[in-house]
Amino acid sequence: MKVDQGMDDVKPEDFDALLLPVGFSPDQLQADDRFVKFVKHFMDEKKPVFAICHRPQLLITAKTLDGRNATGYKSIKVDMENAEVNYKDEEVVVCQGHFVTSRTPDDIPTFNRESLKVLEN
Amino acid sequence: MKVDQGMDDVKPEDFDALLLPVGFSPDQLQADDRFVKFVKHFMDEKKPVFAICHRPQLLITAKTLDGRNATGYKSIKVDMENAEVNYKDEEVVVCQGHFVTSRTPDDIPTFNRESLKVLEN
Repeated sequence: MKVDQGMDDVKPEDFDALLLPVGFSPDQLQADDRFVKFVKHFMDEKKPVFAICHRPQLLITAKTLDGRNATGYKSIKVDMENAEVNYKDEEVVVCQGHFVTSRTPDDIPTFNRESLKVLEN
Repeated sequence: MKVDQGMDDVKPEDFDALLLPVGFSPDQLQADDRFVKFVKHFMDEKKPVFAICHRPQLLITAKTLDGRNATGYKSIKVDMENAEVNYKDEEVVVCQGHFVTSRTPDDIPTFNRESLKVLEN
């Protein structure tokens, strides 16, 4: 993937949806307030947000998951529950029609199917 | 480091202290109940526990940090606060005389000094 623009070049208002894919980089993003603020916009505005594996952690740091239905990789289950998430051990969880989460790369086909449904609505 | 023994070969009762060093492997450990149970013993028994950077997350998963004073890497601050940790942005935090935490590899000299003090007591 080629990065088109840096975080200082973009505004969240200019984007319709947010995909947080698998990988460890979000740990660095959680330590940078610019990224935390960026993702918060999508949850606050109930724009489509798709997060898989460890990625819900960035949304925890943005304090956006309180009371939400979601899933994520097993290792972050307690972190999610501590953030008042209603954690479900399911392939995919769709919350309030805009927020889609899955647990592992094995869930990607289902994750993609439900994410596309959200975008089509 | 050569690994002397596997998790299934050891009992936490046979060890006097626990060091959780820097590195990403604890994410895998958090997903394995054997390791979570192992570390819980040291916190429950108030044996010396030394954790730096992201390592307090393993102790969150073990549900051992409620009400404790501690620090950790910036990216896990919210996770720690959600676990009812009294998070302090300090080089080193010593809690109840047995539990030592630091934020980053830059804090290692102070972390080692305070950890040694706990072992000498």
